[in-house]
Amino acid sequence: MKFFHKVYCCFLICMLVFAAEANANDGYDLWLQYNYIQNTDLQSEYNTLINGIQPIGDSETIKVAEKELLLGLSKMLGNDTQLYLGNESGNNLLYFGSESNLDKKILSQLKKECAQIQKDGFVIKQIQVDNKNHIVITGKTDIGVLYGVFRLLRELQTHKSIKGINIVDSPKVDVRMLNHWDNLDRTVERGYAGFSLWDWHRLPDYIDSRYVDYARANASIGINGTALTNVNANALILTPQYLEKVKALAAVFRPYGLKVYLTARFSAPIEIGGLKTADPLDPEVKQWWREKTAEIYKSIPDFGGYLVKANSEGQPGPQNYGRNHVDGANMLADAVAPFGGIVMWRAFVYSEHDPTDRAKQAYSEFVPYDGQFRDNVLIQVKNGAIDFQPREPFHPMFGAMPKTPLMMEFQITQEYLGFSTHLVYLPKLYEEVFEADTYRRGKGSTVAKVIDGSLHNKKITGVAGVTNIGNDRNWTGHHFLQANWYGFGRLAWNPHLDSKDIAEEWIRMTFSNNDNFVEQIKKMMNDSRETVVNYMNPYGLHHIFDTGHHYGPGPWVGNLPRPEWNPTYYHKADENGIGFNRTKTGSNAIAQYAPEVAAMYNNISTTPEKDLLWFHHVSWNHKLKNGMTLWDGMALKYQQGVDEVETMINTWNSMESLVDQQRFKEVQMLLNIQLKEAKWWRDACLLYFQQFSKKELPEGVEKASKTLEEFQAMKFPFAPGR
Amino acid sequence: MKFFHKVYCCFLICMLVFAAEANANDGYDLWLQYNYIQNTDLQSEYNTLINGIQPIGDSETIKVAEKELLLGLSKMLGNDTQLYLGNESGNNLLYFGSESNLDKKILSQLKKECAQIQKDGFVIKQIQVDNKNHIVITGKTDIGVLYGVFRLLRELQTHKSIKGINIVDSPKVDVRMLNHWDNLDRTVERGYAGFSLWDWHRLPDYIDSRYVDYARANASIGINGTALTNVNANALILTPQYLEKVKALAAVFRPYGLKVYLTARFSAPIEIGGLKTADPLDPEVKQWWREKTAEIYKSIPDFGGYLVKANSEGQPGPQNYGRNHVDGANMLADAVAPFGGIVMWRAFVYSEHDPTDRAKQAYSEFVPYDGQFRDNVLIQVKNGAIDFQPREPFHPMFGAMPKTPLMMEFQITQEYLGFSTHLVYLPKLYEEVFEADTYRRGKGSTVAKVIDGSLHNKKITGVAGVTNIGNDRNWTGHHFLQANWYGFGRLAWNPHLDSKDIAEEWIRMTFSNNDNFVEQIKKMMNDSRETVVNYMNPYGLHHIFDTGHHYGPGPWVGNLPRPEWNPTYYHKADENGIGFNRTKTGSNAIAQYAPEVAAMYNNISTTPEKDLLWFHHVSWNHKLKNGMTLWDGMALKYQQGVDEVETMINTWNSMESLVDQQRFKEVQMLLNIQLKEAKWWRDACLLYFQQFSKKELPEGVEKASKTLEEFQAMKFPFAPGR
Repeated sequence: MKFFHKVYCCFLICMLVFAAEANANDGYDLWLQYNYIQNTDLQSEYNTLINGIQPIGDSETIKVAEKELLLGLSKMLGNDTQLYLGNESGNNLLYFGSESNLDKKILSQLKKECAQIQKDGFVIKQIQVDNKNHIVITGKTDIGVLYGVFRLLRELQTHKSIKGINIVDSPKVDVRMLNHWDNLDRTVERGYAGFSLWDWHRLPDYIDSRYVDYARANASIGINGTALTNVNANALILTPQYLEKVKALAAVFRPYGLKVYLTARFSAPIEIGGLKTADPLDPEVKQWWREKTAEIYKSIPDFGGYLVKANSEGQPGPQNYGRNHVDGANMLADAVAPFGGIVMWRAFVYSEHDPTDRAKQAYSEFVPYDGQFRDNVLIQVKNGAIDFQPREPFHPMFGAMPKTPLMMEFQITQEYLGFSTHLVYLPKLYEEVFEADTYRRGKGSTVAKVIDGSLHNKKITGVAGVTNIGNDRNWTGHHFLQANWYGFGRLAWNPHLDSKDIAEEWIRMTFSNNDNFVEQIKKMMNDSRETVVNYMNPYGLHHIFDTGHHYGPGPWVGNLPRPEWNPTYYHKADENGIGFNRTKTGSNAIAQYAPEVAAMYNNISTTPEKDLLWFHHVSWNHKLKNGMTLWDGMALKYQQGVDEVETMINTWNSMESLVDQQRFKEVQMLLNIQLKEAKWWRDACLLYFQQFSKKELPEGVEKASKTLEEFQAMKFPFAPGR
Repeated sequence: MKFFHKVYCCFLICMLVFAAEANANDGYDLWLQYNYIQNTDLQSEYNTLINGIQPIGDSETIKVAEKELLLGLSKMLGNDTQLYLGNESGNNLLYFGSESNLDKKILSQLKKECAQIQKDGFVIKQIQVDNKNHIVITGKTDIGVLYGVFRLLRELQTHKSIKGINIVDSPKVDVRMLNHWDNLDRTVERGYAGFSLWDWHRLPDYIDSRYVDYARANASIGINGTALTNVNANALILTPQYLEKVKALAAVFRPYGLKVYLTARFSAPIEIGGLKTADPLDPEVKQWWREKTAEIYKSIPDFGGYLVKANSEGQPGPQNYGRNHVDGANMLADAVAPFGGIVMWRAFVYSEHDPTDRAKQAYSEFVPYDGQFRDNVLIQVKNGAIDFQPREPFHPMFGAMPKTPLMMEFQITQEYLGFSTHLVYLPKLYEEVFEADTYRRGKGSTVAKVIDGSLHNKKITGVAGVTNIGNDRNWTGHHFLQANWYGFGRLAWNPHLDSKDIAEEWIRMTFSNNDNFVEQIKKMMNDSRETVVNYMNPYGLHHIFDTGHHYGPGPWVGNLPRPEWNPTYYHKADENGIGFNRTKTGSNAIAQYAPEVAAMYNNISTTPEKDLLWFHHVSWNHKLKNGMTLWDGMALKYQQGVDEVETMINTWNSMESLVDQQRFKEVQMLLNIQLKEAKWWRDACLLYFQQFSKKELPEGVEKASKTLEEFQAMKFPFAPGR
């Protein structure tokens, strides 16, 4: 064996390590890969414009910003940026610090930009001082500076020129948060990426390095809040034993601008407080919550507030005591108000005693309370009126409570979207919701404007996402579902962003800047949401999932004790047709929308076909716009969904040379599962509905691989997420 | 920013990656770190003696051996060994392949060594052929060759000279297996390192790369079997839906010589077979198991067999039908026999209807059956007669069933040893058990000789360990607890090994070859088991853990429905003294040992003090060998345990410069938890026992930080592992 010159030998070793790394990328680094930039022009540009970094200020936030820059720049530029830490004259430096800490000479060149930013916004601008070119990142707060640092790193990651850089950006929404439906035993309700990140048993003394990386990832996309615990809450989280653990997490998250929130179990005063009631108007109950809240703020001064699911699906709430949601929410709001906290009160309610169309119940119950909630209460509304389906029309509450801040609740975890094995790019769904027009103040009254507060001039705004994060090594169980976390954060920051642009950013940061790769994978992601709608719930079908776990199709389920838990309640298939009549001749749910929207949905000919069966019971022979009967069209949509997954597989397989082996293979295995399950959906649903339509499958639809009885016999007692 | 010569620049990049790696070692690679060898003499020796590798044979096992060599050699030697793959003349090659595939010229030089190996043993020998020095790794099977490959890699990892290498080694035990107490919902009974590795939902189509690394790690220490599922079994694992998933795992493990076993729920014929009974003598039941077993072997031809917990702690078994353990075990043994399978029938039984000392029950129930089991049945016996305590005398069954193969069951997971936050080096415990003398065939009839079959000339032998592995990134929740997996495997291979030597191997492979580090850390590990005994259960105390979860002390618990579930049953503290009288004047459990052993334990003066309270109820004023009273001695032992943890912390802290930052800090955090909990044990136990002794604490014992009532009020409803 030959012996090499020492440097060259080391070089070889390193290259081997490097190569091994390249083949074994487990996805842990998310979109913060900071890959070395091979393009020599860009290398030269970045190296010329950034000779060193100069933090201004010494907060913990500035320190983590510095750490991130050192990591990102050294990996992308292949040098040790730390060497140039500020003290070498003659260099082009990167300054970062908040406005109040900036030198006046620098600040004077940023006046115009600084005037444009609000809240935690930032400015990134190249300026000249004493004949040197500097880049300055600033904001009103150090958190704004940190956001700017991540933004600059993103410019490099996505291979953008930074010559004469001048970026001004501010979040359009105040509260941008993740909701973890994580239980204290580390199971995660509707979690499909392993188990909870929060290792409660070993907290507060063992700080998993993953907590830091979680905070980094969130800060990089502007997420500033996290509700650690399940909305189906356990009061124990509010005991000293657990608050000490929450405090430890809050300390890790604080430098990253990530506030901690907790879910408040309404009956906690009884369960852990020793009281006889949790009546929100009872003075002792009020006092208990005030004291408990003060106790929390004493150890976590920046505690965000409470997230509450009350009188919904068995959770306790004010109605247990003859009180209403206003009584409950305001009582908690009063407890957190002295500390600047908020209450997020969920509107996801439907009653076991109310036979009304479930889609109508949240609106009916909440809209009359408009104007009665405290200023620091946000009503958190799911994007649609049923429950996180592959497609739902926007929730009629949006725009209907002008005096109340409504907070959006999206689901990032794929309860009804194939768990974590189906590649579905959800920002496309979020965008569709945000772009929907409520017409509440005339045309253009989009849901985005409700949520960003501009439609009704709100003082406080928010977007929440039920996370898809677990302790799987790649966080989300599927490399591509990291994009849903990423895209959620980006849209929470600005609900007016284009989901395609977000996909491109993510692809470049996560996988590759190769143009062919970017274009093809962007298309694949972009199409993926419609694909899952096609093979699961075409034409406005909804909630036809198998019982309880919601894994796979279960349109035949009709024996559950509450009518609105049954798929048959939602599709109402019979010999005459299929779909839920929510028009004036049916449940009249359409009346909850603004007149323009109601008129559109009331009429089958003006109802978008994507929402057809959501609003109408439609004959199997109904002629679709493409000239086919509904039966044929539906069958072919199911087939199309399957075909589109095959296209995704072909696209992915053609990219093998551009992706590291580990991620390539893992995504490939998952796409194959998706295809198998898309076929399962197609076959099971068509066999079932065929019993009613009594029609043959149109040409082009593949024959089912099992009988209906076989599909119905499939059981998944240990499907995850329950 | 300066521009470097291209190579040098790349070198720098690589060094940064390297440095980042060095600081962020998450422990995933276990003892297979394959660190680059800095020592130039060794580099030179290894490079000279291994110019390339030459696989002989083309089995999957030989392929994975080749892959492992390429990985290990390239990382340790810093070159791309693949380049030299066998075809360059003039080189010293590393040949590896089974005897039957070796060239005769080579084989003729290995005759003596090959005659010494059995089963999956191996030879590693340097030979001369045609004036070239070659190293040959061979064995009777390709699996033996793979073991040899790992052994050679270990020689390099531990910086041993390989000049004139000549190693002959064979396993002394046939079945060397892990028992996973993993449930189908991925919770792990008594698991403290996250959740189950087995992602049943995504199997068989998604193969986590971790499955491969699990198999590699096991093969590297000679483990050749894994029971995937909890002994508290679920019959669903035997359904086609799950067997398909088991098949996929078996396929991953097969090249590594790792056979899959399943736990058989005795009532499966009823639960999944539709039969009305599970009576082992019922012809339909027999037939059902025969067919089920044939079905398993059809898809997994090398399936290992069944592990059974029957009529124990609520599990169904033959006694439900008036039959006995022999009837049950033999019925299953007959089902697997045609395929070469085995049945491991657990002896861990105690009856809720039997008021006898629990320590006596397994012996009483099983020893009379000696000679009645089929040849392919192993009786799996826990190391002690109670339940995996920090210290127990050896189980009296060892040596007492000369006609029956007894398999050792150790617990690697620390149910009673501080979960995964306490650093306890368990091979020290295993060694103590193996070295214990049963006197069944006179002095020297050690447990090791019972287990390796030499005492009673057994045809089949086995050792099982209940694993401490979960989906935590570092596998075992604590970097040092990886040593227990490692050490278990090594002692299963050869129960006569010295635990200190094993610790040294592990330290060198996992952390560092620095002599100071090795010596000090070896001492720390070696002392750690006695330390945990000192602060939890000194002088033979046992089972005084808090209820159910077994986290922390609970000597006061006395209200559980079954007497033998209560700590008070085991310590029997009263005003007169403390301890369980198992002598002739008490439960007479000592009579289950050979006369020499029984006599020793029957007499308080010949009973080793470490086992004192296991066998005797002892006055608080009893004079210990050191002259102290029992009370003072016990109190000082608790204090000593705490002091020793402080010593561990000091030792570890002094090693900071020799360990990567991530592992250093993580171990440091865990040692601090261990100290906190050691004090908790000391304070809670001494306060409780002081009620009975009514004596002051001796000088040197720190004052308790809480009152007894406060300790008793501590609750852990979500302690892991239940």
